[in-house]
Amino acid sequence: MPINVTVWNEFRHEKEEQKYADVYPDGIHGAIASGLKRSDDLTVTTATLDEPEHGLTERVLNATDVLLWWGHKAHQEVDDAIIDRVHHRVLNGMGLIVLHSGHFSKIFRKLMGTTCDLKWREADERERLWVVTPGHPIVDGIDEYIELEQEEMYGEHFDIPPPETLVFVSWFSGGEVFRSGCCYSRGAGKIFYFRPGHESYPTFFDRQIIQVLSNAVRWAAPISGPNRQFGNKQPLERLALRD
Amino acid sequence: MPINVTVWNEFRHEKEEQKYADVYPDGIHGAIASGLKRSDDLTVTTATLDEPEHGLTERVLNATDVLLWWGHKAHQEVDDAIIDRVHHRVLNGMGLIVLHSGHFSKIFRKLMGTTCDLKWREADERERLWVVTPGHPIVDGIDEYIELEQEEMYGEHFDIPPPETLVFVSWFSGGEVFRSGCCYSRGAGKIFYFRPGHESYPTFFDRQIIQVLSNAVRWAAPISGPNRQFGNKQPLERLALRD
Amino acid sequence: MPINVTVWNEFRHEKEEQKYADVYPDGIHGAIASGLKRSDDLTVTTATLDEPEHGLTERVLNATDVLLWWGHKAHQEVDDAIIDRVHHRVLNGMGLIVLHSGHFSKIFRKLMGTTCDLKWREADERERLWVVTPGHPIVDGIDEYIELEQEEMYGEHFDIPPPETLVFVSWFSGGEVFRSGCCYSRGAGKIFYFRPGHESYPTFFDRQIIQVLSNAVRWAAPISGPNRQFGNKQPLERLALRD
Amino acid sequence: MPINVTVWNEFRHEKEEQKYADVYPDGIHGAIASGLKRSDDLTVTTATLDEPEHGLTERVLNATDVLLWWGHKAHQEVDDAIIDRVHHRVLNGMGLIVLHSGHFSKIFRKLMGTTCDLKWREADERERLWVVTPGHPIVDGIDEYIELEQEEMYGEHFDIPPPETLVFVSWFSGGEVFRSGCCYSRGAGKIFYFRPGHESYPTFFDRQIIQVLSNAVRWAAPISGPNRQFGNKQPLERLALRD
Repeated sequence: MPINVTVWNEFRHEKEEQKYADVYPDGIHGAIASGLKRSDDLTVTTATLDEPEHGLTERVLNATDVLLWWGHKAHQEVDDAIIDRVHHRVLNGMGLIVLHSGHFSKIFRKLMGTTCDLKWREADERERLWVVTPGHPIVDGIDEYIELEQEEMYGEHFDIPPPETLVFVSWFSGGEVFRSGCCYSRGAGKIFYFRPGHESYPTFFDRQIIQVLSNAVRWAAPISGPNRQFGNKQPLERLALRD
Repeated sequence: MPINVTVWNEFRHEKEEQKYADVYPDGIHGAIASGLKRSDDLTVTTATLDEPEHGLTERVLNATDVLLWWGHKAHQEVDDAIIDRVHHRVLNGMGLIVLHSGHFSKIFRKLMGTTCDLKWREADERERLWVVTPGHPIVDGIDEYIELEQEEMYGEHFDIPPPETLVFVSWFSGGEVFRSGCCYSRGAGKIFYFRPGHESYPTFFDRQIIQVLSNAVRWAAPISGPNRQFGNKQPLERLALRD
Repeated sequence: MPINVTVWNEFRHEKEEQKYADVYPDGIHGAIASGLKRSDDLTVTTATLDEPEHGLTERVLNATDVLLWWGHKAHQEVDDAIIDRVHHRVLNGMGLIVLHSGHFSKIFRKLMGTTCDLKWREADERERLWVVTPGHPIVDGIDEYIELEQEEMYGEHFDIPPPETLVFVSWFSGGEVFRSGCCYSRGAGKIFYFRPGHESYPTFFDRQIIQVLSNAVRWAAPISGPNRQFGNKQPLERLALRD
Repeated sequence: MPINVTVWNEFRHEKEEQKYADVYPDGIHGAIASGLKRSDDLTVTTATLDEPEHGLTERVLNATDVLLWWGHKAHQEVDDAIIDRVHHRVLNGMGLIVLHSGHFSKIFRKLMGTTCDLKWREADERERLWVVTPGHPIVDGIDEYIELEQEEMYGEHFDIPPPETLVFVSWFSGGEVFRSGCCYSRGAGKIFYFRPGHESYPTFFDRQIIQVLSNAVRWAAPISGPNRQFGNKQPLERLALRD
């Protein structure tokens, strides 16, 4: 049975500045969706900030197994009610893959409970993402490291809860390291943060980056059952378990 | 140098119903503070919901190394601005010990990112808290398990992020288990959730429970330096680290 | 592509005492293999202690994706050279599922680095395995808990490294708890310890127990590539990575 | 009460080659011991490979709270019986701090259960150890990173179990990263692996490195009680816990 994937993108840089549209003519979401569609087991759609309800209606979210999230300069424009809806869905099993500057998105900060702050520098630096957990399904088909010739630098300290599994650690030529592939579970949902993907570089056309994202989608897909409800409205149960 | 401890209590049950005042004549905060004061290295004060700013002014929080939190039926009355202030202090190093029904407090849910929901039953059940991490500073002086003759039952699934260190697992006579001693780090702060302590039982007079809380305070105390700022207002830094 | 599974059993109790043969007429390995074979995606064979090389030749191990291990009273008869072979295969990606009294097997202790000691009692007690990580692939299709009417009791402290993921916690009617479903990674290999399965109870005929084992096999299966070598004979590499 | 520290060193390079003696005239153990002694709460002695029983008699180990271990080219000369003795003491609460090339020591590999293999290169490279867990007692007094002008490079993949707490991640100018400060617990014992410290560099005279080691000693010190026995000879207990 195919996995239903929704790629969400803020989609502002590409509409507002030609230099970003030159890199991503179909938007960042278009590039990611196109890459994921090469896998037969994934059914991929997209959604963007400026659509009604940011494209994330109840119907869309209920039909989504894994949501990818790219945002950067318009985090504050995302409606809190939609964030609560996404949060509820994650706790009830929907996978979430947060990309690059999505570290500062409302949904990631709400799920992490921390500021998600970090250091950064735009200097066309070389990034090397080293695999520290060989054997993990997210690195299936990936070599010892992925090298990106030019990327924005993100540096520690990255103010996140310690990852449950740390998959990648990035090296930057300027002198920093970064925990760049981080797995979490929250409720019945699985979350993967993946660092690369600045709007000015063609990172999401890289074959290995798409491989990681495809692997991550499969890893984050919900289990098939049984259905449990996690959420603020869940009545506290009284069990009658004694003989 | 002594550790400055603030014991925060909602302090409503004990004021509103005689049966709880009979168990805790000086309030739950009074019992805990009295127990902690037996340790010479701890300087202990208290704060309660109905004081101005809930007793948690900037001055109080800045002088607090470790904050203990007991709340139950008035979580919603705690002001969001005060919660943000506590959250900021935790990320900047203040220890936080969340007790029993504090699992549903705003501060714990904000730090965890999940619902913190659980099962419960009031049936005067026996609880046995088994140590699963011998050698951990929080179980210094504690035997293989702590037995409480009567407590409220809390049962799994407890909707929290997986603890970074799981210190205790509780057994209840009615058929449930519970992860009842859970360590987390968030920013520069250390957090310990400890399950026992229902308002109708004299749990906080138990010598071993006080031992665990005293140990937890020492474990959660901030390191002495250097001072770093974690928070929403932290400017994103540009490092000039290259030669 | 099917997953190749080898079910290894000490196979002594069932040959030496009729009462165990009555419970497991085809051996414990026979019952497990029969259960796993109901899944079309698993190709299942068995191996036992008294076969040449304990049935674990280089050829067999190289063709095995996931190995299940049940042993109890003959741990010391397992040849150290075979253990080294299994250890090497695990580090290079083969999944390993250790069952019940296999906690004291040479291979589990070698991989854990601890005594793997625990408390136990044979008293026909009820066991309830509570799920503490909903959403994990190993609990796909499993309800809030699995109940076994009669099992041997295992109690904490269980002397293992803290599990990377704790999936189940057991409750026993006699007063103990146990971390009964524990995930680890070692090298490129994934390891799952699963508690139930005493020789005197029909645990491995339980539908939900087989469901957990089938799920665990899929979780522990090696990723498809790239091939990396982990082992004592790996030459230390010199990388020439600088420009 | 002071913490009793034993600094163990292979002590061969410094005796056999003048260039190493020039860096460490009193041996690596001498430099470390001298640095630790600056803390009033630590009582420090040393032991070396060529002493009887490698200086690690029952009496010495029983009086040791925390053992530091530096070895490189003579790992195979360490007697297995002594390793078993150290292993038993760690499981029963003695702290262990493994330094640099000690990653390949028998005791570290026995406790980890993996090969502990890694990449390396001797090229006088700059190392920057970034703190990824601010607030952890091991980084008390340490700034955002420690910089060492020249060190041997160690690179991922480092074949260890995932650290329970990852404290430092190293950046090397040649293009690699390394998990260089790793916390573990085994039995009642706490273990810290710390990467820097090649025999040809004056790393153990660095003020911040000594600060980390002093912090780590305090973190790894055993709790005061109760005394529990972990070990192969522990009888399996029968508890009579039922009413």
